[in-house]
Amino acid sequence: MKLVRFGEPGAEKPGLIDGDGTLRDLSGEIADIIGATLDDDTLARLRGLDPASLPAVSGDPRIGPCVGSIGKFLCIGLNYSDHAAETGAKIPDHPILFFKANSAVVGPNDTVSMPRGSTHTDWEVELGVVIGKTAKYVSEADALDHVAGYCVINDVSERHFQSQLSGQWTKGKSCDTFGPTGPWLVTRDEVPDPQNLDMWLDVNGERRQTGNTKTMIFTVAQIIEHLSGLMTLHPGDVISTGTPPGVALGMENPVYLKVGDRMDVWIEGLGQQTQTVAEDA
Amino acid sequence: MKLVRFGEPGAEKPGLIDGDGTLRDLSGEIADIIGATLDDDTLARLRGLDPASLPAVSGDPRIGPCVGSIGKFLCIGLNYSDHAAETGAKIPDHPILFFKANSAVVGPNDTVSMPRGSTHTDWEVELGVVIGKTAKYVSEADALDHVAGYCVINDVSERHFQSQLSGQWTKGKSCDTFGPTGPWLVTRDEVPDPQNLDMWLDVNGERRQTGNTKTMIFTVAQIIEHLSGLMTLHPGDVISTGTPPGVALGMENPVYLKVGDRMDVWIEGLGQQTQTVAEDA
Repeated sequence: MKLVRFGEPGAEKPGLIDGDGTLRDLSGEIADIIGATLDDDTLARLRGLDPASLPAVSGDPRIGPCVGSIGKFLCIGLNYSDHAAETGAKIPDHPILFFKANSAVVGPNDTVSMPRGSTHTDWEVELGVVIGKTAKYVSEADALDHVAGYCVINDVSERHFQSQLSGQWTKGKSCDTFGPTGPWLVTRDEVPDPQNLDMWLDVNGERRQTGNTKTMIFTVAQIIEHLSGLMTLHPGDVISTGTPPGVALGMENPVYLKVGDRMDVWIEGLGQQTQTVAEDA
Repeated sequence: MKLVRFGEPGAEKPGLIDGDGTLRDLSGEIADIIGATLDDDTLARLRGLDPASLPAVSGDPRIGPCVGSIGKFLCIGLNYSDHAAETGAKIPDHPILFFKANSAVVGPNDTVSMPRGSTHTDWEVELGVVIGKTAKYVSEADALDHVAGYCVINDVSERHFQSQLSGQWTKGKSCDTFGPTGPWLVTRDEVPDPQNLDMWLDVNGERRQTGNTKTMIFTVAQIIEHLSGLMTLHPGDVISTGTPPGVALGMENPVYLKVGDRMDVWIEGLGQQTQTVAEDA
């Protein structure tokens, strides 16, 4: 299933994309796509519905983040061997964790605003993992059973804020609008191998990032094992699993984002995002 | 006002402590003490009530975290000049920010559980700041108008997880139960100077930390100015503002927490916490 949330920010309704690509309204079935509705039983019930029986949504509504009320937005840094190489960083011994503020989350096609003083705003296409079942001390073998599904994330990053404002990356990751998430939450039954997904990111139509989740240093299952040994992962938590090569930071002569730029962000089977860059009000 | 939340985890009710120290039930007035009820108007309305008209709560209920549904739990590191000295760190140019997972938040007297494999669990008494009004690009002069009130936080920290698991402090800060918060949310009208509050922390009755918020490197107002320049602070967000000297990490021969230890944590005017240390199940 491709689950979506549509409507104005803060008032999104749940929906699904049927086999013909039509957006269908799920609000008669569940209140929202949030942690409480991502358990296996609810997903099985939704999967059992005849999409044709659900109201088709007319018009072209805004698409919101594909999961609402995100508790924790956990991000893994330097998780692609080819990206670690381009940034000159050594391969980490464990998944590098930082948090993105959940207040940074926006819809997949919402405007990305550069905060005041930003000169180094950068892009990062990433595979997002949405937790569906509480995970604590979970083994790698069992880890993927705790996943509701997958989505596209653009882990927008201000490199100066990230590294020049006295340590800890989270400052450069948590600015408002720095977390486009969606368009779809694709349930895990439709993603047989999360470690073999092509992905790319274009800026103004030029290909910047090209990658495949097979070059991840730590797999999704290994990340869940590691994080769930540190803290409980709750339904509705999101893990962004790192980015492949091609970010501005990795260029010989970096060209960072500027107002008016357009980003297109795609992962195989998970859909495409398109954002325009603006100045923060 | 001293606002409290009482009852079992996840089912807390709002209350206040009256002038005689009696816990009064506020659930006839507000649904909970959360971002949506921390605005100036709501707090003024509650302040206008006659506490004697509110039902006294019988028995000795558990006290929960003094604010519910915390969105972001922002922590400032190395923010006391005397603590920076004891850890050998240099004075930062800007407030150091990391996040504590909001899933780590517990009540002030709840058990603190050492995660599996923990050998370096440490304590940190900290002044907590609860945001009451949305803050974005706020000046130092206006910053404290955005504060609903203050509370005690024990920023429990696993030093090995914090520094030995491939960078970024958040791993050592986000373990379940590592965020005792409360007992009271003391509204800002009752804290005329947040930069002159004594504080201490005892382990098994021995004084470990002694400090005063006047040795903060960055004041509460400066921290809010800085953070609100990076991201929007929303009502119900919590900022933990760093710890004074006396943590285990700073000892010549560190003695970390062990099962059965007791921590008492106090800040002038904000109340006292008491936690017992256990092993995570």
